[in-house]
Amino acid sequence: MDINIPHVLQELQSISDQYEAALVGNDVAVLDTLFWNSEHTLRYGVGENLYGYAAIQAFRAARPSTGLARTVLRTCITTYGHDFATVNIEFQRTGASRSGRQSQTWMRTPAGWKVVSAHVSLLEAAP
Amino acid sequence: MDINIPHVLQELQSISDQYEAALVGNDVAVLDTLFWNSEHTLRYGVGENLYGYAAIQAFRAARPSTGLARTVLRTCITTYGHDFATVNIEFQRTGASRSGRQSQTWMRTPAGWKVVSAHVSLLEAAP
Repeated sequence: MDINIPHVLQELQSISDQYEAALVGNDVAVLDTLFWNSEHTLRYGVGENLYGYAAIQAFRAARPSTGLARTVLRTCITTYGHDFATVNIEFQRTGASRSGRQSQTWMRTPAGWKVVSAHVSLLEAAP
Repeated sequence: MDINIPHVLQELQSISDQYEAALVGNDVAVLDTLFWNSEHTLRYGVGENLYGYAAIQAFRAARPSTGLARTVLRTCITTYGHDFATVNIEFQRTGASRSGRQSQTWMRTPAGWKVVSAHVSLLEAAP
């Protein structure tokens, strides 16, 4: 398995930049397009566990469009062969005390790269 | 891309059961074996962000072996072709008030299935 083939890595960099811009801008249509339209798609959000594309889409449609601004603190993209990738970022929401983490697994489909699984959470303070 | 080929799904079910048993039993050697030995491996834990196999291994070695008991509430395994899979679970730690979520991306390597990226967090209460 070839890791981080340069042109594949570049594709993922580009599409994750698109995702970030759509997220911060609450461009729901673009966010929907970037998720795999499947019952198998899953998204664990900060405060919700969503199973299937329809549930994720409904969540986005209902979400308030404010408070989405964030700064990306660190990005780690890894590609595996030509068709799989993980994108992990640490971020800081504007005005939030705790930093966050976003993990996505991407798959290449005939319709382009799509998120098949995502997990977003806030880092807990040390006990 | 063939999704959930039965024998591949079965492999993942088996190896994620192994992982769960090793986690609850704090069998660090097995946990280490199930992670990809690579600088690209990443694990966002409840309270830490770990980059690279060495950092993950050091964290495990230093972690207290108590308080790891948990019940799996829901499991969602999806396989993509023959070499990639995502394993997502919801869990409840014994004695904890909040439920947790664990996301793993697995890759088939010459040495078997390995976790290449993981994210564990606790669900936030609704605001």
